[in-house]
Amino acid sequence: MPDAGSAINLPLALMVVFGSAKLLAEVCERLKQPAIIGEILAGVIIGPSVLGWIAPNETLHVLAELGVMFLLFQVGLEIKASELRQVGGPALVAATAGVILPFVLGWGIMAWDGAPRVESLFVGAAMVATSVGITAKVLAEKRLLNARASKVILAAAVIDDVLGLLILAVVSSVARGKINPVELGLTAVAAIGFTWLMAWWGTPAMGRVMPRLDASLRQSESQFNLAMIFLFAMALLATYAGVAAIVGAFLAGMALSETVERRVHDLVHGVTDLLVPFFLAGIGLNLDVGAFASRATIVLSLVILVAAIVSKFVGCGLGALSLGVTDAVRVGCGMVPRGEVGMVVAQIGLGMGVVPKDVYAVVVFMALATTLVAPPLLSWSFRGLKPAVAKSAIL
Amino acid sequence: MPDAGSAINLPLALMVVFGSAKLLAEVCERLKQPAIIGEILAGVIIGPSVLGWIAPNETLHVLAELGVMFLLFQVGLEIKASELRQVGGPALVAATAGVILPFVLGWGIMAWDGAPRVESLFVGAAMVATSVGITAKVLAEKRLLNARASKVILAAAVIDDVLGLLILAVVSSVARGKINPVELGLTAVAAIGFTWLMAWWGTPAMGRVMPRLDASLRQSESQFNLAMIFLFAMALLATYAGVAAIVGAFLAGMALSETVERRVHDLVHGVTDLLVPFFLAGIGLNLDVGAFASRATIVLSLVILVAAIVSKFVGCGLGALSLGVTDAVRVGCGMVPRGEVGMVVAQIGLGMGVVPKDVYAVVVFMALATTLVAPPLLSWSFRGLKPAVAKSAIL
Repeated sequence: MPDAGSAINLPLALMVVFGSAKLLAEVCERLKQPAIIGEILAGVIIGPSVLGWIAPNETLHVLAELGVMFLLFQVGLEIKASELRQVGGPALVAATAGVILPFVLGWGIMAWDGAPRVESLFVGAAMVATSVGITAKVLAEKRLLNARASKVILAAAVIDDVLGLLILAVVSSVARGKINPVELGLTAVAAIGFTWLMAWWGTPAMGRVMPRLDASLRQSESQFNLAMIFLFAMALLATYAGVAAIVGAFLAGMALSETVERRVHDLVHGVTDLLVPFFLAGIGLNLDVGAFASRATIVLSLVILVAAIVSKFVGCGLGALSLGVTDAVRVGCGMVPRGEVGMVVAQIGLGMGVVPKDVYAVVVFMALATTLVAPPLLSWSFRGLKPAVAKSAIL
Repeated sequence: MPDAGSAINLPLALMVVFGSAKLLAEVCERLKQPAIIGEILAGVIIGPSVLGWIAPNETLHVLAELGVMFLLFQVGLEIKASELRQVGGPALVAATAGVILPFVLGWGIMAWDGAPRVESLFVGAAMVATSVGITAKVLAEKRLLNARASKVILAAAVIDDVLGLLILAVVSSVARGKINPVELGLTAVAAIGFTWLMAWWGTPAMGRVMPRLDASLRQSESQFNLAMIFLFAMALLATYAGVAAIVGAFLAGMALSETVERRVHDLVHGVTDLLVPFFLAGIGLNLDVGAFASRATIVLSLVILVAAIVSKFVGCGLGALSLGVTDAVRVGCGMVPRGEVGMVVAQIGLGMGVVPKDVYAVVVFMALATTLVAPPLLSWSFRGLKPAVAKSAIL
């Protein structure tokens, strides 16, 4: 019987998005391009920019958000916290340099273009935040998550998110016209405290709690159920602490990496296999080429795009130079994608009335284009490195 | 960073729904009640009826719809079409008797209560359609999907859905005041044709097509990806043919049951484990006890509920009597839940202005309460039957 209760035709949307993503992934694979590019391009093609079959909507947004949350959780499951802490030093330097340079450059370009101070600050802040989903997917697909550069990227992305939050907090305060040092201090303490606790104490805590809880439950798949509840709780706590839900998901996965059975990996894998294409195609769906009406907007977009790529690459690369040139280049490439995090910053500015619509479109373009640029850069910079053999494939 | 783009707090909604469902499932397990009852009750408790923490919304609706779609797909994967066809005769008789009796009884009660003719017909039609999701979940949990009575239930549920569609088409025509025999004939041909083709030719077609397609693809997990695309396509075709998306999902799973590898089962299992609690809790969420304002509505609800349970049990049970009393009782119990399908019928009547709001609430109550009654009935009627050993657990 027809389902009159649903606002969209769910099977149709699922088939079009998932089917086109997998079709173009296959095409890219045969052209020896990263499959991930095909899945993003599928979104561009079926979305408002080209065919207009599917518009971004709440349902697809939720599936995309779930997809990237599970992707980062799955990546976390493959990483030991102790290994990530070992690269903490270089990651901290790389993340910091990779935050300062894009922020200053974005701010400078907008100021030079004649934009008001607050608007310039917001564009700078939007250029800060790396979105690690795409990089994680590429590295996972190549089974390179356990390479040293990969770990530096993951650690740096977590630190980068905390720093980006603090910059956004400062910029928002400036926009509101009053800086409250106590509030800013509390924001910093919450974000740093949550991340620190999870990275240092997540694994031992889960190592104690999980087996006992698991043994006390009578339901089937209780370990998977417990892992899911922990994932959702940490994603929630992360947003309360001010960092991204996906950072919480990653830290949750890492905290469980030494505890859960292979079975949980397999079940999580099923969920990511289904949902990640919605995250990737969703990136493409959000691109609306119609937003680039004037020549000035197009020029500004390209300038900001180049600045975003170069500043992150140089900042993170220089910061990671202690690892040698090869790994520094890998880290620089891996930190380039801005994804949805940059868009969220610009959205906040739009909501506060300090970022105009055309500049918002510029930021969205930057966020999407840096994401599209990253997979080939990563493939190139990680070429020749052997994939881990012991680990099972994670798509 | 906070996600300003989302209308609901996704991690919060996920944690509350999933967590409460699993908690109450555990409680039920310890009280030796079916776990499924706990998951439905979780929805009642966190929903508008009791705590009011979560209201039914589009996101949860989509997750629930996906959950039941994957549940039926997974059940299909465990069933061979040839085995289902073997019980086609008794299933057809049981389904037919189990359609006629509730329809006539529902119509009669409403007419006797003084309702207009079209309204009475709609309530009768809403009492027809079995929603097989709950029964499938209970039987899968008990690993009893391969019992003879289980197969009769599954086959009868598919036939029941087609018959229900035809009744709805006739009743809708009566409501519109003109019966178009050509249109009704086309509806019948489309629904019966789709089901027939899938049940008879789905398995051999997939046996030929899947391995070739799979071998020609270069991506990892290509078999799972192909299975997903086939699932979405069949769910879509089913709605175009007029039957429920979950019937399409079940037929798609069955068509693939003899082709796909164990790996696909495991990945699908991950998705169902995550999403089915949203389907179950969603049933409870949709119950709003506030709708039962007047005493007359409460009395009518109880009368309709008892009529719905007895008529389906007696109709299907008598229809399946050729299998012996024990299996006939099992089939009768398994067909009792109406779930979302009955609600959709009432919704259509509401939309056409022929079903008043209080009668709609009566139908929703009947649909939910029959669903809540089924798991203990099934546990009782299937008691003593040994679960299949060779099959892996499907939650």
